[in-house]
Amino acid sequence: MGVEAAISALTEGSELRTRSLIVTIFGDLARAPGAEIPGPVLSAITGRIGVKPEAMRVALHRLRKDDWLASRRDGRVSHYGLTEAGRAASEKATGRIYAAAPAAPALWHVLVAGPLDPAARLAHDGALAAAGYVTLAPGAWLGTGPAPADTPGLFAFDGTPAALPDWLRAELLPPALERGYASFARGLAATETALGPGPLPALDRAALRVLIVHGWRRLVLRHPDLPDAFFPAGWAGPVARARVKALLARLGQPAIAAIAETAATARLDDPAARR
Amino acid sequence: MGVEAAISALTEGSELRTRSLIVTIFGDLARAPGAEIPGPVLSAITGRIGVKPEAMRVALHRLRKDDWLASRRDGRVSHYGLTEAGRAASEKATGRIYAAAPAAPALWHVLVAGPLDPAARLAHDGALAAAGYVTLAPGAWLGTGPAPADTPGLFAFDGTPAALPDWLRAELLPPALERGYASFARGLAATETALGPGPLPALDRAALRVLIVHGWRRLVLRHPDLPDAFFPAGWAGPVARARVKALLARLGQPAIAAIAETAATARLDDPAARR
Repeated sequence: MGVEAAISALTEGSELRTRSLIVTIFGDLARAPGAEIPGPVLSAITGRIGVKPEAMRVALHRLRKDDWLASRRDGRVSHYGLTEAGRAASEKATGRIYAAAPAAPALWHVLVAGPLDPAARLAHDGALAAAGYVTLAPGAWLGTGPAPADTPGLFAFDGTPAALPDWLRAELLPPALERGYASFARGLAATETALGPGPLPALDRAALRVLIVHGWRRLVLRHPDLPDAFFPAGWAGPVARARVKALLARLGQPAIAAIAETAATARLDDPAARR
Repeated sequence: MGVEAAISALTEGSELRTRSLIVTIFGDLARAPGAEIPGPVLSAITGRIGVKPEAMRVALHRLRKDDWLASRRDGRVSHYGLTEAGRAASEKATGRIYAAAPAAPALWHVLVAGPLDPAARLAHDGALAAAGYVTLAPGAWLGTGPAPADTPGLFAFDGTPAALPDWLRAELLPPALERGYASFARGLAATETALGPGPLPALDRAALRVLIVHGWRRLVLRHPDLPDAFFPAGWAGPVARARVKALLARLGQPAIAAIAETAATARLDDPAARR
């Protein structure tokens, strides 16, 4: 069946961490304030993807402990939703994940530190990388937008890149990440082929969306948000982005209620799902 | 006498290298194509400053050997002039030495090298420093104007400085150079006081000009041409520059013929000058 083949194409070769997958599910399907996913719907989506119920229970427990998810009981059904902290973190990543195009800043800045001991430089590197900076050289970083008003002890320089050398492109996209993009782009192409043009049940659409967003999220959040020119010529990033965009448009955003409906039907149809 | 005091103020505390002083003399008094200084006039100027005739002969010999000066004999008198190479080198320094204000570039650029072994970095540092670049960090340089069109292997970034940290100012003006500026500025102030407003013979004007230009040249050519904001607050550079400008304007540019005339008169007046 087409959907099975599409799910295989999107999952093969990559290990799915359940906790991270659930983060993707809530980020994609229930990011709005007050949005909730009933336990059975969550189980239906993860089950469709092939996640074991035990792994799911452990992950949900941890995400509640980490104040990422909250749950409430309504009769015999648990309803899960993002906490304020979980929603804030999801919102932060959303811009990168769903952006139609990579960043195209009109202004950039370079920061250069004075003589630093290795420990101080590492601390700078960590803080600036977390803020989206690119490390150009030991003690030299590239950031987007104008330089912050207050950069104590740093040389700050506003402007625009004029030449991007190959070593920088290679540093921004290490071989493993470059292979990750290539393999994901192939998985997306196989998914497009497997799905064909026909309509799909809401549960399948949800499961496929989650896998696509998850695979994409795992790649884009591993490097700073930079124009394509910063990456090696011929990398699969732009192709993958275009396929993600086209597939998400094709699948649409299924409502939780619609997923619940197909999930219930699927359970009635499938004796293996009854426990 | 005022001129003696002025000459002392400008020479004390700094060792005058005769070769370098003669370079200054030709750069200041005989830079025009075809300009020449007769040997006796040259001797009169350096003698007024206190250079010994032997030191003078050695320096002239070396400067001819280095293709900086050429000489021709006219009867019993040698005439010295800059060679093409000497004139080109003098012209190159002229911009910095006689500039009414430090550089105020509207555009700058930063260059960053990829991972380099220490030898390669040193080579880059040397070449870029010679071209007027400021080393910001190991493998990161600041230059004026837009980035060159061809910077193989370098990250190039066009823009303008936004924040200048103290460590950079201190690196650009090491303590010895800062003291050099302060002491030269004091010497210039003492010269102004010693000279007073009266007229001066052409030979004295030439000797004083040479000392002022020489002292200034030795300072400004030891650091890149940068706006005052790049140097520590309160350094003596701007004061020294203003005094150099005022004194050179006060002394005017004496013609070689006028210097020759006062030199001949001085020789007749002064029994010690007869040999």
